[in-house]
This record gives sequence, structure tokens and C-alpha cells, in this order.
Amino acid sequence: MVNLCLLGCGGSVPQPERNLTSLLLNIIGSKVLIDCGEGTQVSMKRIGWGFKDIDTICLTHYHLDHILGLPGLILTIANSNRREDINIIGPTGLSKVMDSFKIFFNYLPFRLNLIEASGAKDPVFETEKFNISALNLDHSVNCIGYSIYVNRMRKFEVEKAEKNMVPRELWKDLQNEKSRLFDGKMYTPNMVLGEIRKGIKISYITDTRPIDDIQSFVNGSDLFICEGMYGDDDDINKAKENKHMLFREAATLAKNSNVKELWLTHFSPSMEDESIYLDNAKKIFDNTKLGYDRALKQLKYDD
Amino acid sequence: MVNLCLLGCGGSVPQPERNLTSLLLNIIGSKVLIDCGEGTQVSMKRIGWGFKDIDTICLTHYHLDHILGLPGLILTIANSNRREDINIIGPTGLSKVMDSFKIFFNYLPFRLNLIEASGAKDPVFETEKFNISALNLDHSVNCIGYSIYVNRMRKFEVEKAEKNMVPRELWKDLQNEKSRLFDGKMYTPNMVLGEIRKGIKISYITDTRPIDDIQSFVNGSDLFICEGMYGDDDDINKAKENKHMLFREAATLAKNSNVKELWLTHFSPSMEDESIYLDNAKKIFDNTKLGYDRALKQLKYDD
Repeated sequence: MVNLCLLGCGGSVPQPERNLTSLLLNIIGSKVLIDCGEGTQVSMKRIGWGFKDIDTICLTHYHLDHILGLPGLILTIANSNRREDINIIGPTGLSKVMDSFKIFFNYLPFRLNLIEASGAKDPVFETEKFNISALNLDHSVNCIGYSIYVNRMRKFEVEKAEKNMVPRELWKDLQNEKSRLFDGKMYTPNMVLGEIRKGIKISYITDTRPIDDIQSFVNGSDLFICEGMYGDDDDINKAKENKHMLFREAATLAKNSNVKELWLTHFSPSMEDESIYLDNAKKIFDNTKLGYDRALKQLKYDD
Repeated sequence: MVNLCLLGCGGSVPQPERNLTSLLLNIIGSKVLIDCGEGTQVSMKRIGWGFKDIDTICLTHYHLDHILGLPGLILTIANSNRREDINIIGPTGLSKVMDSFKIFFNYLPFRLNLIEASGAKDPVFETEKFNISALNLDHSVNCIGYSIYVNRMRKFEVEKAEKNMVPRELWKDLQNEKSRLFDGKMYTPNMVLGEIRKGIKISYITDTRPIDDIQSFVNGSDLFICEGMYGDDDDINKAKENKHMLFREAATLAKNSNVKELWLTHFSPSMEDESIYLDNAKKIFDNTKLGYDRALKQLKYDD
């Protein structure tokens, strides 16, 4: 199960009406944050999920509207008594950016593990609960999109375990996908577990033009969060020039990618009311929703 | 005349309920900003005074809650079509801090003039309209307080000009405090202008313990904006340890400095309701007010 919160839905510049685009995922107690512009930690404070359990921070690129809140957030996490490492993932240039932030940290009570994701290695980050993949996008600077895949445990089948005569003291380890040697015989998880089950996939794509690679990358997502910098089809030249997308283009990606739901975000400050353009997306992909600050969603495994 | 806005009244960490402490002054069209934490540009946007005319930015010190909003603000000013230089004043270390921010600017359409104020030179910055003085404070890092003195033009006295037989074509220059040589004779402003008149003085002191030097520095201020990190007298040890002030201490400075009005600001996030402590200050200096986000004031010349 995943609980997520779109902490903001704005692009470019922080606004009174819209926080900057950022996504917080709570994956069975472990928190992943994607992007951290100015004001992100205030939006986090509003939802009250706490700061201590933020294990992983993913940055799409190093424009200020995606990273300026990071040094302040790291200090706030430090004040929350966290002592465990934090993983920070970003495109090439991550060490340089983090180096420039170091001037503001006297001492941190945890280590920052920097992972520069090229987008070639897949996944770029893996834990027992989930893995994170990255894709190179098409923006004015190095920029990557993220897909988070949350694993679902296989079902334990007592009958299968008994049929395979697996000693009871090994059941727990095998259930946790660990093989065990016992009395000279190797016991494997397959001897007690059922079929592999579909997990939960969330994809987050901003800032970019709608390149073809995105379709296979986000394919099958339960939730596809995608930039829609401009709602009006007439802004296509602006979108091309600034390397962003129209609502229509994001919806076309969603339609071609077999995703369940699309959330648009990263709205241009020049677009005062995004709702008047929603139909531009919905007529291509009906299950499109407009992101808004602190939009919440719970994603459950299929049954 | 000066219009000013306290853009925030919080200290340490940005909060949903309080922006970080920062002051914006509009001095006859020229804007001066003091401190710029995360969220400052959003608070500025709310009051709608624009970004283009920010000529001078003063930083008290380099803790994140006073500077993290600066790179974003500078980019926003750049997008407002400003082409004139911006003066940035701060304690020793300014170049190093601004260097670390440079990674986020590809190109700025104006120059940043950096002025490292030691607090010894007085004033540290001067224009025709106003001058800015700095004072070394007592915080955990180099920190300075600011006083802004807005000049008042002297009164033009026609009778005096005529008595001194000043040619009419010189009147305008002399009124603007410029001497002129004419027909072999030197004409000075004193030949047409009245007495020097009191201007407007605004002082801004945060973060610091209440050192004696502050009293002479802020003496005679029309408005004294001072940190009050803690309202409760019982927090004196915390105040000493973290190099901050109690409400009572700020009020004592105000009382001993012949200021007209005191605004408290930079409230600790641990202090949920500052109003219950206001009397701790008012019983020492009655004209004390609690700062709040976007508190506005217009200061006029005496008379």
C-alpha cells in the first residue's frame, strides 16, 4: 500500500496560490520525496507526516524550482533526530549541487548518500520494499523522470509448504524470499510461495517535451503524475521553446501507456485557472485529474 | 515618507502559520529588502509591490532562515526585466555565500554589487535618499543589525534666496543641495535653504543577545523592529544559549533608546501564541506591538 501527497502543483516560481511541484510517497513507513523547491517543507508540515522517515530524495533536475528547498529540509530533518543515512538521487551534477549547499551545514547527524543516475542503469535504487527507475528526459538541462515500483509480497501457501515437506522453522525466512540450507538440503522461497503478484507503480515526469521513451517507461502505472505546463493548445510554441508540455501532450502519453490515472501538475504561473483547459486532456485520456496542493491518494494492491 | 512591510515574523524554520522574518521598505520608489528566507518572495508577491525596483538587499547573517530565498528572488527580479545593478550588503563572508549561489544562475541581466559591511564604517551604504548603517551583533555566527535613515529635504526659503540675491536659475540646483559657481561667485545651498530637518529612522535587529551597543545604534528610531525569539521570561537560559532575546530584553532596549515604537518579530516555532507574552514587553515599553506577516506601516516626517 502506498500513500502519496502531491505537495504542490506549480512550476517555475513559487506562488501564493500554488506550491512548487513535489511528490511525497509513504511506502509502508519509508518516505520518498521527489523534488524540493522553495516552500516544500512548509507544505510537508501542513500534512503532518513528519520529517524523520524521509529515507530517499529524488531530484529531477537542478533548476531552482525543484531544489531550492533542499538545504532547509535537510536541516529540518536533522532537527527531527534522524541518525540514519539519506539517499539523494539526481542526474549528473548532483555532487556539484550538493557541494554548493554544504556551506549551510555545519554538521549533519547523518550521511548523505549521493546517487548520480544516468538513466541507463535500471533500477537506479533498490530496497526490499520498492525500487526506483530513472529515464533521461528532454529539457533545457539534464533532467530525469522517475518510476517507483512497490513490490507486493507473494502469498504464503501452507499446502505447498507441507507438500514440499518444508520444516516449520524455515517458513518465516522463506516467506521473506530468503533461501535456507537445512540438514544438507536447500529450501527455496518457491517451495512455500505462490505466483509473483503485481505491485504498485507510480511515475513522475517533469520537466520535459513528450518524448517517445516516456511511454514504455511509465507503461502500466497505477498513477502517472505528469507535467502540464500549459493547458491551452495555442501555447505549443511556448511549450516547445521552454521544453515543456501541453495538457494534450501529457494526456496522449497517458493514453499510449496503459496507465490507470493521470494527474497533471507543474502549471505555469501564467495560467491562472487550469480548470478551463482540463477538457483538452480529458478528451484524449478521460481519467485525467488536475493536481492541486496537497492532493492525497492511497494506492492499494490489485486483488 | 516610507512605506514598509514586515514580510514575515517567524524565526528558525518556515512554518505554515508564519513566514520567516524579513522587512521590505519602499523609500520614495526605491526598495530595500532586509533578509530573505525561504518563502520571502511569496510573501512579497502577496502584497503586490513588484520586484523590479528592489535596489538593495541587506542580509543580517548567513543562517538559512535569513538567506535561502535569495537565489530564487534574484531570478524573479531578473524575470521582471530589471537591468540596473542590485546592491547586496552583508557581514564578512558575503562573497563566499554568493559564490555558492552562482551555480543556479546561468546569466543575470544585472550586476550584483557585493558590500561586506564590517560594522565599523558608518554608514555602510549611502544614496541621495537614505543611508544604511550596520552594527556588529552577538549571535552564534557573524551577524549585523541595520539602521536606515531616510533624509528629509530642507525647506526652500524664498525670502532668504532673495535676501542673498541668488539668481533664479540657480534655485533648483541649490534646493537639491548642489553648490553652483555663477558669474565668478559661489552660491551654496545654505543661501536658500532652511534648517536641517529630522528624517525617518528605522532599525532592524535580529539575531542577537541584547548587547549595550544596540541602544546607541537604534537611538531615536521612529520604528525599532527587534527580535523576540522567546516571550516567556523562563526561557532566559534558552535565549542565552541560542544567542537570542526575550520579549522583555527587546523592550528594555527600546525603553533605553528613545524609540517611538517597537515591533517584535522572529518568534520561535516553539511559541505557538506570542500574544500571551506581549505584556512582558509592554510593562517595560508600552508602545510595543507584535509583528505579524505582512504588517504594514507608513512613516511620515514630523510636523
